[in-house]
Amino acid sequence: MRYDIAIIGSGPAGLSAAINAKVRNKNIILFGSSNLSDKIVRAPVIDNYLGIYNVNGEGLKNAFRSHIESMDIKINEERATNVYAMGEYFVVAANDKMYEATTVILATGIEYTKPIKGEEEFLGKGVGYCATCDASLYRGKKVAIIGYNVEAEQEANFLVEIASNVYYIPIYKGNYSLDKNIQIIKDTPLEVKGKEYVDRLVLKKSEIDVDGVFFIKDSISPKYLVPGLEMEKGHIKVDKNMHTNIKGCFAAGDCTGKPYQYLKAAGEGQIAALSAVSYLDTKKNN
Amino acid sequence: MRYDIAIIGSGPAGLSAAINAKVRNKNIILFGSSNLSDKIVRAPVIDNYLGIYNVNGEGLKNAFRSHIESMDIKINEERATNVYAMGEYFVVAANDKMYEATTVILATGIEYTKPIKGEEEFLGKGVGYCATCDASLYRGKKVAIIGYNVEAEQEANFLVEIASNVYYIPIYKGNYSLDKNIQIIKDTPLEVKGKEYVDRLVLKKSEIDVDGVFFIKDSISPKYLVPGLEMEKGHIKVDKNMHTNIKGCFAAGDCTGKPYQYLKAAGEGQIAALSAVSYLDTKKNN
Ligand SMILES: Cc1cc2nc3c(=O)[nH]c(=O)nc-3n(C[C@H](O)[C@H](O)[C@H](O)COP(=O)(O)OP(=O)(O)OC[C@H]3O[C@@H](n4cnc5c(N)ncnc54)[C@H](O)[C@@H]3O)c2cc1C
Ligand SMILES: Cc1cc2nc3c(=O)[nH]c(=O)nc-3n(C[C@H](O)[C@H](O)[C@H](O)COP(=O)(O)OP(=O)(O)OC[C@H]3O[C@@H](n4cnc5c(N)ncnc54)[C@H](O)[C@@H]3O)c2cc1C
Repeated sequence: MRYDIAIIGSGPAGLSAAINAKVRNKNIILFGSSNLSDKIVRAPVIDNYLGIYNVNGEGLKNAFRSHIESMDIKINEERATNVYAMGEYFVVAANDKMYEATTVILATGIEYTKPIKGEEEFLGKGVGYCATCDASLYRGKKVAIIGYNVEAEQEANFLVEIASNVYYIPIYKGNYSLDKNIQIIKDTPLEVKGKEYVDRLVLKKSEIDVDGVFFIKDSISPKYLVPGLEMEKGHIKVDKNMHTNIKGCFAAGDCTGKPYQYLKAAGEGQIAALSAVSYLDTKKNN
Repeated sequence: MRYDIAIIGSGPAGLSAAINAKVRNKNIILFGSSNLSDKIVRAPVIDNYLGIYNVNGEGLKNAFRSHIESMDIKINEERATNVYAMGEYFVVAANDKMYEATTVILATGIEYTKPIKGEEEFLGKGVGYCATCDASLYRGKKVAIIGYNVEAEQEANFLVEIASNVYYIPIYKGNYSLDKNIQIIKDTPLEVKGKEYVDRLVLKKSEIDVDGVFFIKDSISPKYLVPGLEMEKGHIKVDKNMHTNIKGCFAAGDCTGKPYQYLKAAGEGQIAALSAVSYLDTKKNN
C-alpha cells in the first residue's frame, strides 16, 4: 500500500502534522518513539506553549499523547534510516523494511554532534540547550554556558541578570560582546559531573562548580537521511509553505531552523501538513 | 515611559507573542479586546490545536485567558489606530492616546470584509477608519459611520457631540446603545462618491449627503495602520524571522498569510517575540 503522507518524527512538529493531516482525512504513517520526544519529556518546566501553562515535560507529553490517541493516530516505533525520492512517490526505509508514501514530512528535530561525557545523562537535570527557556530555575545559581556560536552570547547576557555566576566557555573564536559580569573561560569542556543533578564541569585545564550547564550548539545535517535535500546553514531549507527543494517533501520544527521551541515546531507542522494536503489534491486533479 | 514591545492584537498570534516576550522579561503592552478574538470565541469545534483536543471556541479562549492571567499579562482594551516608525522607536496611537515602544509586533488578524466601491479611493479624503482621531475635521458637518462591530457605537456617540449629523449604519445585529441624536439607517452601503472629497454615500435603498464616511471594522488593512509597511498579495510581507520591511517591526498570524489557523498563528507569534527580543538585545549592546 502507499500512504498519502509519511511523517518522520514524533515531537511537536510531527504530531501537529499528524493531527492536521488526519483532520483532512489523509492516510498517514508516523515514525517516532513511544515517549514522543526526549526534548518534550525532559523539560523541567514549560510556560510558553500557549494554552497549556506551567507543566513539566511529562505534562505536555500527556496532553499531546491524549490528543493523538483521541484521533486514533498510532506511532510506528521505527527509525527511518533513509528517504528516497522516486519522482512520483517516496520510499522510506526503516532498517530492513520499506514503506511507500506520496509525500514526506521531515520533523526529525535536531541532533547534536559529539555530546561530551555526562551531557546526555544529565539532560534535564542541570544540562540544557536553551538558557533563556530554563533561566528561572537558575535564579541566584552558578551556570556555565558552552557556546558553539555567537548566538550563545545573548543567552549568557540574559542569564547574567538572573544567575549569581555565569561562566562562558566559547567554542569559537571572535570578539565576544558579553556583559562585564560574565566570566570567560577559554578552555575545552570534557565532562559534566554530578550525583542526581549537575554539580561540576570538568575542563581540560580546570574544574568549576556549577548548578547548570547549557550547550548552545548548531545542528548536524539531515542531508544524510534524504539524499539531495538542500540545506542552509545546517538546517533544512524550506519556503514559507514548508516545502523543501524536493517536490512532495516538506519539513517542520527544529530541523528547519531557530528558534528551537515547541509552539514554533507545532505551527510549522500544521503548515507542512496543509501544504502536503494541497500537493496531494493537485496531483489527484491532474 | 517606553515599552520594549507593543503587541497589536489579542488573537493566538498576539497572545503567544505576549507570553514569550514575558518569559524573556520584556516590558510589553498588548492591545486587544477582553474576549481575545471573535475568531476564537465563534469556532464551533476545534481539534487541530495540538494538546487541546475537542474544545469549542469558548474552551480555547478560556485556556488562553487562564495562561495569560497566570503570567499576569493584561490586555489594554484600546484599538491601535496608527503606528508610526520614528527610527529608534515607534509611536502607537490609540485614538487620542500615544504609546512609545522600541519594537512592534503586528498580530491584527485579517479582515474578511472587502472594501466597498470608492472606499480606498477616498481614504484620507473623507473616508477614515478612526472617527475619534479625525473628529475635529468634521465639526458641524455630516458624517456616516459604518459600524462592523459594537465598538463603533462609541465612536458614533463621540462624534455626535461635534458633527451636525451622524448617520449610523450597523453591519451587525444587536441592541444599539446610541445617542438619541444619531440616525440609525439599516441598509447596505454600496459606494462612496465624491469629486475631490467625499460628498455622498450610496446605499442599497437610499443615498445620503455626507462630508465624511468612517468604516469601523475589526481590523483595517495593515498598510493603513502602519505607513510604509510592505505588503505582498494582501498580506504583510515577512521573512522567516517574522521581520517586516520596517526595522523593529514584526508580524505574526493571519495577517502574514495562509493557512489561517490557530497553531500557525501562535507559532509565528512566538517567533516574532523572540526576534523582537534579539533585536532589543542588539540595540542594548551597541
Ligand atoms: C531540556 C529541554 C527543555 C526545553 N524547554 C523548552 C521550553 O520550555 N519551551 C520551548 O518552547 N521549547 C523548549 N525546548 C525545545 C523543544 O524541546 C524543541 O524545540 C522541540 O521539541 C522541537 O520539536 P520538533 O518536533 O522539531 O523535534 P523533537 O522534539 O526533537 O522531536 C523529533 C523526534 O523525531 C524523532 N526522530 C528523529 N529522527 C528520526 C528518524 N529518522 N526516524 C524516526 N524518528 C526520528 C526523534 O527521536 C524525536 O522523537 C526544550 C528542550 C530541551 C532539551
Ligand atoms: C468560525 C471560525 C472557525 C474557525 N475554526 C478554526 C479551527 O477549528 N482551527 C483553526 O486552526 N483555525 C480556525 N479558524 C481560524 C482562526 O480563527 C484564525 O486563523 C486565528 O484566529 C488567527 O489568529 P490571529 O491571532 O492571527 O488573529 P485573530 O484571531 O483574528 O486576532 C486578531 C485580534 O486582534 C485584534 N485587533 C486587530 N486590529 C487591532 C488594532 N488595530 N488594535 C487592537 N486590536 C486589534 C482583533 O480585534 C482580534 O481580536 C476559525 C475561524 C473562524 C472565523
